[in-house]
Amino acid sequence: MVAEAAGVSRVAVSRAFTPGASIDAGKRDRILKIAAELNYTPDRAARALRTRRSHLIGLVVPDACSPWEAQEIDGLTTVLQEHGFGCVLFKTRTDFELDDAQLRNMRSFNLDSAIVFPECVRPKRLAPYLDRAVPVYIDYMTGPADETLHDRLEVDLRPGLSKAVALVSGYAPSRIAYICGKTESEAEHARREVLRELLAERGLPEPRLLAGDFSYARGHSAALELFRVHGGADVIFAANDESAFGALDAIRYDLGLKVPQDVSVIGFDNISQAAWGAYRLTTVGIDLPARIQSLVRMILERLKHPNARPLCDRITTNLTVRDTVG
Amino acid sequence: MVAEAAGVSRVAVSRAFTPGASIDAGKRDRILKIAAELNYTPDRAARALRTRRSHLIGLVVPDACSPWEAQEIDGLTTVLQEHGFGCVLFKTRTDFELDDAQLRNMRSFNLDSAIVFPECVRPKRLAPYLDRAVPVYIDYMTGPADETLHDRLEVDLRPGLSKAVALVSGYAPSRIAYICGKTESEAEHARREVLRELLAERGLPEPRLLAGDFSYARGHSAALELFRVHGGADVIFAANDESAFGALDAIRYDLGLKVPQDVSVIGFDNISQAAWGAYRLTTVGIDLPARIQSLVRMILERLKHPNARPLCDRITTNLTVRDTVG
Repeated sequence: MVAEAAGVSRVAVSRAFTPGASIDAGKRDRILKIAAELNYTPDRAARALRTRRSHLIGLVVPDACSPWEAQEIDGLTTVLQEHGFGCVLFKTRTDFELDDAQLRNMRSFNLDSAIVFPECVRPKRLAPYLDRAVPVYIDYMTGPADETLHDRLEVDLRPGLSKAVALVSGYAPSRIAYICGKTESEAEHARREVLRELLAERGLPEPRLLAGDFSYARGHSAALELFRVHGGADVIFAANDESAFGALDAIRYDLGLKVPQDVSVIGFDNISQAAWGAYRLTTVGIDLPARIQSLVRMILERLKHPNARPLCDRITTNLTVRDTVG
Repeated sequence: MVAEAAGVSRVAVSRAFTPGASIDAGKRDRILKIAAELNYTPDRAARALRTRRSHLIGLVVPDACSPWEAQEIDGLTTVLQEHGFGCVLFKTRTDFELDDAQLRNMRSFNLDSAIVFPECVRPKRLAPYLDRAVPVYIDYMTGPADETLHDRLEVDLRPGLSKAVALVSGYAPSRIAYICGKTESEAEHARREVLRELLAERGLPEPRLLAGDFSYARGHSAALELFRVHGGADVIFAANDESAFGALDAIRYDLGLKVPQDVSVIGFDNISQAAWGAYRLTTVGIDLPARIQSLVRMILERLKHPNARPLCDRITTNLTVRDTVG
């Protein structure tokens, strides 16, 4: 109907509606104008059956509500919708796993791709639920390799964490603590192990490990326990910024101590709240725009070449120095 | 294939995969087990064409990254996925509007429902892009009525704001300021107007309006401007918690003043960060679990009865008193 009214081929109409397709700009505008007059948009359900494309990207999130996840979801949604894709969120159980019911639910959306953490579901188990889609894994290079085809975004923790340890070593700390994240998280595992290696390499003391779960509340109670039960520390590393905020508030408002005079605190993530005046947190950050750009690049590349060999990008980390170490 | 292997009817298989459908639990488990063995899930693209259901709910967000939006997205995703639905996010332009390209994109997903703010797109303009789906509007009862069928969640600001104004009146303030949100936002418009009415009803002074955009940074600069250019205030109301945090940090760390001794601050939203030790913000909150429950109830009710008369729920607000007023 649109092709007829515009005097063009059906292929031209299809191209006009496909972001990035090769078509003359004037022709494209004319087709879109006529399509709007006729109230036509390509019906995605019909198109999905024909092309096997749903234009839906699954985003597996252990906790959509955390500021870090929110900032990543925001960035991915913004960039992917410019390419005509929608993000569908899938929340894991509280132990970070996707169970069978959630995987069945995921499969029924016929996703074009999915962004996944290895602790939520391994590539081999996920594959039958994604049909032809190839997932992208956020990978800390800690687990065993899995032969099922998947793409990977590697996060290299050493550049940022090694600068944090170097900074701290300048104050010759004798007692170091680490507030853990959720034990099921591979990010937590990687951060803890790389930190321990880096401290050992510099001859600094082994960190005392305090239980945590990435939350403000557990960061707060971990700091109280550290000072009231274990006699305190000179430096506290936290598995993420949010638990570092909890520790800072406990140190200042419950224990009446000063940061950084009495104790230094270092976070991880560099979320926007870390720059807020009440915290001014020194923290190790992932470059979020680079992470989003890499993920989107791999998704688009994979959709063009479904059978290509595994893609792999690596992003790095860096230290942002504010006011909580000294 | 599954029906044959399980020795049941096709209808029974369909029911086993439909959350909430009437089927014996043992029979359901048997069917799901056999379906798993055969690697079968109902294909949503095929089912969408047959039933016209995509099981996708659109969520229009002006700013996915704000803590308030993140907490709402998290709650909605969690509850809706239990009912077999996926949330797809649609970000508006920075002026909060959805343009034609975004609406065409939205239409192509064949959404079952959408949760929308009136400033992003009016019901009449949205209707042709939703085909048969009926949207739910978050409504502050400020704009003119729109006859196109849509459901509404009304947010009643008076109960919470009137308690905030009553509390403040107990300290007989002579200078009151209000840090505005984004001017395009109907939430901003409603909060400002209800606050002005309530202050006038108690014979309190008209608030000085300070430009803002719901962000920490603008809340921070608005407080600096208030004290450095306009001589300060006894009470500051902020359009949301995040701008109240910015104001608090400016007052304490840049101006060297004390809260609440020198100035009281009241926020709006009651996000989880408002309880953090560094802020302990007195704020007017929407009951988020009630809001999510209402939205989901209306979506499910509407899908059962597509032609029913407009649905309307109302949620209320309340004051949470912490440490920033005195």
